[in-house]
Amino acid sequence: MNTPALAHRLSAEALGTFWLVFGGCGSAIFAAHVMHADDPVNMGIGFMGVALAFGLTVLTMAYAVGHVSGGHFNPAVTIGCAVAKRFKWKDVPAYVITQVVAGLLAGAALFAIASGREGFTATGNMAANGYGAGSPAGYGLMAAFLAEVILTAFFLIVILGTTDSRAPVGFAPLAIGLSLTLIHLISIPITNTSVNPARSTAVAFFNGDGAPMQLWLFWVAPIIGAAIAGFAYAALTGEHREGIDIEGERI
Amino acid sequence: MNTPALAHRLSAEALGTFWLVFGGCGSAIFAAHVMHADDPVNMGIGFMGVALAFGLTVLTMAYAVGHVSGGHFNPAVTIGCAVAKRFKWKDVPAYVITQVVAGLLAGAALFAIASGREGFTATGNMAANGYGAGSPAGYGLMAAFLAEVILTAFFLIVILGTTDSRAPVGFAPLAIGLSLTLIHLISIPITNTSVNPARSTAVAFFNGDGAPMQLWLFWVAPIIGAAIAGFAYAALTGEHREGIDIEGERI
Amino acid sequence: MNTPALAHRLSAEALGTFWLVFGGCGSAIFAAHVMHADDPVNMGIGFMGVALAFGLTVLTMAYAVGHVSGGHFNPAVTIGCAVAKRFKWKDVPAYVITQVVAGLLAGAALFAIASGREGFTATGNMAANGYGAGSPAGYGLMAAFLAEVILTAFFLIVILGTTDSRAPVGFAPLAIGLSLTLIHLISIPITNTSVNPARSTAVAFFNGDGAPMQLWLFWVAPIIGAAIAGFAYAALTGEHREGIDIEGERI
Amino acid sequence: MNTPALAHRLSAEALGTFWLVFGGCGSAIFAAHVMHADDPVNMGIGFMGVALAFGLTVLTMAYAVGHVSGGHFNPAVTIGCAVAKRFKWKDVPAYVITQVVAGLLAGAALFAIASGREGFTATGNMAANGYGAGSPAGYGLMAAFLAEVILTAFFLIVILGTTDSRAPVGFAPLAIGLSLTLIHLISIPITNTSVNPARSTAVAFFNGDGAPMQLWLFWVAPIIGAAIAGFAYAALTGEHREGIDIEGERI
Repeated sequence: MNTPALAHRLSAEALGTFWLVFGGCGSAIFAAHVMHADDPVNMGIGFMGVALAFGLTVLTMAYAVGHVSGGHFNPAVTIGCAVAKRFKWKDVPAYVITQVVAGLLAGAALFAIASGREGFTATGNMAANGYGAGSPAGYGLMAAFLAEVILTAFFLIVILGTTDSRAPVGFAPLAIGLSLTLIHLISIPITNTSVNPARSTAVAFFNGDGAPMQLWLFWVAPIIGAAIAGFAYAALTGEHREGIDIEGERI
Repeated sequence: MNTPALAHRLSAEALGTFWLVFGGCGSAIFAAHVMHADDPVNMGIGFMGVALAFGLTVLTMAYAVGHVSGGHFNPAVTIGCAVAKRFKWKDVPAYVITQVVAGLLAGAALFAIASGREGFTATGNMAANGYGAGSPAGYGLMAAFLAEVILTAFFLIVILGTTDSRAPVGFAPLAIGLSLTLIHLISIPITNTSVNPARSTAVAFFNGDGAPMQLWLFWVAPIIGAAIAGFAYAALTGEHREGIDIEGERI
Repeated sequence: MNTPALAHRLSAEALGTFWLVFGGCGSAIFAAHVMHADDPVNMGIGFMGVALAFGLTVLTMAYAVGHVSGGHFNPAVTIGCAVAKRFKWKDVPAYVITQVVAGLLAGAALFAIASGREGFTATGNMAANGYGAGSPAGYGLMAAFLAEVILTAFFLIVILGTTDSRAPVGFAPLAIGLSLTLIHLISIPITNTSVNPARSTAVAFFNGDGAPMQLWLFWVAPIIGAAIAGFAYAALTGEHREGIDIEGERI
Repeated sequence: MNTPALAHRLSAEALGTFWLVFGGCGSAIFAAHVMHADDPVNMGIGFMGVALAFGLTVLTMAYAVGHVSGGHFNPAVTIGCAVAKRFKWKDVPAYVITQVVAGLLAGAALFAIASGREGFTATGNMAANGYGAGSPAGYGLMAAFLAEVILTAFFLIVILGTTDSRAPVGFAPLAIGLSLTLIHLISIPITNTSVNPARSTAVAFFNGDGAPMQLWLFWVAPIIGAAIAGFAYAALTGEHREGIDIEGERI
């Protein structure tokens, strides 16, 4: 099929990244912890529900608009696909800028809604990523860095593998979305899980509390992980690609 | 394929909307909070289980009868599809009335079963939607309105995108159903999640406790959100539609 | 394709029904409630995990052996399909007997494993279905009856709808399995959820504690519900079936 | 399609088995139990989240690289497929060694990250499998053995059934992955769930605390279960296979 116009592809990336941040971070901000009025139990969704929410943002939007833009919604994915020669380098800047801007808009929308509850304080409560003092369970910088590199690398392996021409047709958004759920099931306690610089940037400044100073790690580590996978996938799996145009191919 | 007769389409909408209210609100009423007999833990399904239940009502019925009626089960979806020129305006009233009536029947069935447990009081315990005093976690009117508009808009984006002729075939009910799960993961604490005027109407009067007075918002906000998405989808994503008959096309 | 030999079809039903009881009831017996050693929290899977387990037994086995037997694993499903003219009445007795026997074998296996934990008492702890004193949350006979009829009827609607020739191909086991998860999300507190006489029979006698005396309801109500749906589906949805042989068609 | 080169197939098995151990055991180590700072509730994912994580490692990697290697990621699966004549015996040793080595690398990566949290002690906290004193809920050797045999046998039934030529195309990784989730929903309290000797070996030595001495059971029981299913599947279900080359056919 023909590649859609760049404006439509950027619109699709904007919708998808807004949804990823609004749904993923929103579930964490609004719903992870809601104590019952009478009993000492959490009616909220916990880390498990947040993990499911992040994955479903990608699953749903990759099915909905992946056919338009390829469904990246994540600068590390865009860069990893470019490294793997699945995406044109010349389109990377427009994709990344769109993702960051859409993520920030979602962060603003979350801030607006969260502020509608009496007693809400944004500081430290906007689902920021972090390490050390910023890690939900106190994991240090090296552990956080290692986790983000490994997890983003495998995220890209799943993306590149499920969109390989040899893979079953139509299931890529399902597997990719659920791999993001899996990644959160593993690592929310470590870094609150990024693997996505746009998601980290979207809430860091609303969150404050040290998050902006730690933001560098959530750009560097995911991009390193994605690049490793982008370099390694074809060599490891014997993928053959012969001069085909690959934009928007992720679905 | 030929469009099924209107009577069959309305039957399918009735089955689906009954199931949505019975399953979604029912899981909340019966199963969200069930304390263990000996330990201070909730054996029930919490907000996470309710979110899953709502999504699965749509997933299952969209696969089961979506091929008959399009699988709307929701006045906002019907109106949003009409705005997007995917559904004929002349069929909107019959669909909406059917959805509301079927939802009310499900509300009555839930009331009948719930009353079979000693000590049950309907007031405030029928899974109504609300804001302010009616919000599970105390979110105000503006936050509730904004959340319902945004969430319904993205619900329609997922619906219109996954049923776009460019999307993978067969996966629309999966993605649409799971998007409703996602929407609940985000927003149960805010409004108890509507995005569906028929669902809100179905239990408001059984619930009482202020819910009927707040029902307007759960008609206005979802329809505004759905209409925005209906207007924007084709322009944003470059969808081309040329004079095809689109009834019942959602699956 | 040709219908497989009856012996193979019954083997497939035996495998599936064993798995349904072993996995569904087993998750409830072994894993629903496991308190943490130090903290007053349930590490176990709760009603939500049990609901997921029941659904996944059907999802997995319907994909695995549904192509052999149709993947009923449930006397109510077999009877409902016969009422709907999707299954030959002459094969109903062999299917039902096989399902009951396989379920009882699974109940015995669960009892053997559960007895391997010191202090285990079978009485009241074998995931039996019940109403009144046997209902997890104290729902009476009428509520239990009504819930089982409605839920089984909708289970059959999902089964008949997703295997309708007009539905998307390949997704029936997914939707049917997840509809069983949904049914459990709604009704574990009411009756511990049956909708399947073989499942109820499989553990009632190991469980004791009044369960055998209440077993009649979990044969009568599911079969009534299934028969209603079997009668109504084609009329409601406009399905046309013309003299085709329909055995094993569920997948 | 042609079978990929052995080096690529082993790379795919290495990626998949690393991911299975890193994701499954990692979710248990990092995220199962994370108490809230103020309230006595577990924000972590519990046994349910761990069950989901294990299943999603297989679901995602079977879609991503199953087309390369068949997506075993488990010595018991490789052996069971060989017994069922779906996989060449001459390739079994290379597959099994690769799986064990990749699993151990994942165990090392988990140890490195876990050590990045102050106060972490590996002993007893590395998600090892066990029985008796090593069983999460105190199940004895015979119960553990029986559970592992039955669960691995059914795991193989699902694998062989969903990759049978009569089954729906493309859904095998979904059903197989979710069957592993189901298996964990049932049996985490019994043995912490193995059904996979590579997964057990990967963390036993890091875990210590008696796990290495119990490792034999998690090789013997899964392989027995897999072999039973491998022998029985074709006879039970009437599968016909006529001289086709079956390597890498699992997907």
